[in-house]
Amino acid sequence: MKKTQTWIITCIYLQLLLFNPLVHTQGICRNRVTDDVKDVTKLVANLPKDYMITLKYVPGMDVLPSHCWISEMVEQLSVSLTDLLDKFSNISEGLSNYSIIDKLVKIVDDLVECMEEHSFENVKKSSKSPEPRQFTPEKFFGIFNKSIDAFKDLEIVASTMSECVISSTSSPEKGKTYKHS
Amino acid sequence: MKKTQTWIITCIYLQLLLFNPLVHTQGICRNRVTDDVKDVTKLVANLPKDYMITLKYVPGMDVLPSHCWISEMVEQLSVSLTDLLDKFSNISEGLSNYSIIDKLVKIVDDLVECMEEHSFENVKKSSKSPEPRQFTPEKFFGIFNKSIDAFKDLEIVASTMSECVISSTSSPEKGKTYKHS
Repeated sequence: MKKTQTWIITCIYLQLLLFNPLVHTQGICRNRVTDDVKDVTKLVANLPKDYMITLKYVPGMDVLPSHCWISEMVEQLSVSLTDLLDKFSNISEGLSNYSIIDKLVKIVDDLVECMEEHSFENVKKSSKSPEPRQFTPEKFFGIFNKSIDAFKDLEIVASTMSECVISSTSSPEKGKTYKHS
Repeated sequence: MKKTQTWIITCIYLQLLLFNPLVHTQGICRNRVTDDVKDVTKLVANLPKDYMITLKYVPGMDVLPSHCWISEMVEQLSVSLTDLLDKFSNISEGLSNYSIIDKLVKIVDDLVECMEEHSFENVKKSSKSPEPRQFTPEKFFGIFNKSIDAFKDLEIVASTMSECVISSTSSPEKGKTYKHS
């Protein structure tokens, strides 16, 4: 009898959790991130440490809330990863760099699509295209991992202008603004 | 009865073949080359196509007999491969770039040792150190494969001075000489 009661309570809790709107708004693109992101560690170990990967780095990633930079960053990551994929040959055997990068491109493209579907259009991209910079595999995939982590907790927010302005004291990139509509 | 005769004849042929001094002088370092060289194809596919590998290329490889350049070339390959190994991390899983390069370094170091043991000391190295050049993975491992193939057929030869001189008409590297003692 007690067992049945415990089961009913557990079921109610689970249902509350699943249909809670708070859970729904948090991690809106979380389900686009597959377990393939774990292969990043293997990929970094399998790339020459001094190989430089070009990425248009969106400034403010370190100081601004994720909704300010995530949309543009994920687009730039998609461009860089697609370029990187082209540098390798597709060998059928095992876990090749090609196969790992191919899966990462798919995840990133899914995230770009997810961002287009959700209400982040109100955060407009900067009018100036971010400058291309060179990163070692370790640094490049550090940025990749940070973006993926940000997606896991991404919420639909009513953002304010001030949130997406880099303070002149907090960063050397003084007062750069990401326009909002 | 006929079967036994055939077996005896086969055995005699095999013994002749094994103890034939001609076979002994050909491919003197052949046994140092293991099947691991086959992984070069996977390695090339798993390295960025535009990554540049530094190698001090020994001139004359295309035109001179292998005994003129093989000893110095294999030493330079060992240096370049050891440098390359340092660019990767050792991950335990699967066939990583690190594990492949590590095996190739062992083969090349074995070949350097083999060359020191055999009578090729009479082919002295050039007094000038070959200039470092940059090669894509495809070109670098093309030179590696060519050197390995040359080892498979390497004979102990009584070389002559003229053999190791690059003709002024056959190559742009005019009249470069590899000294003999």
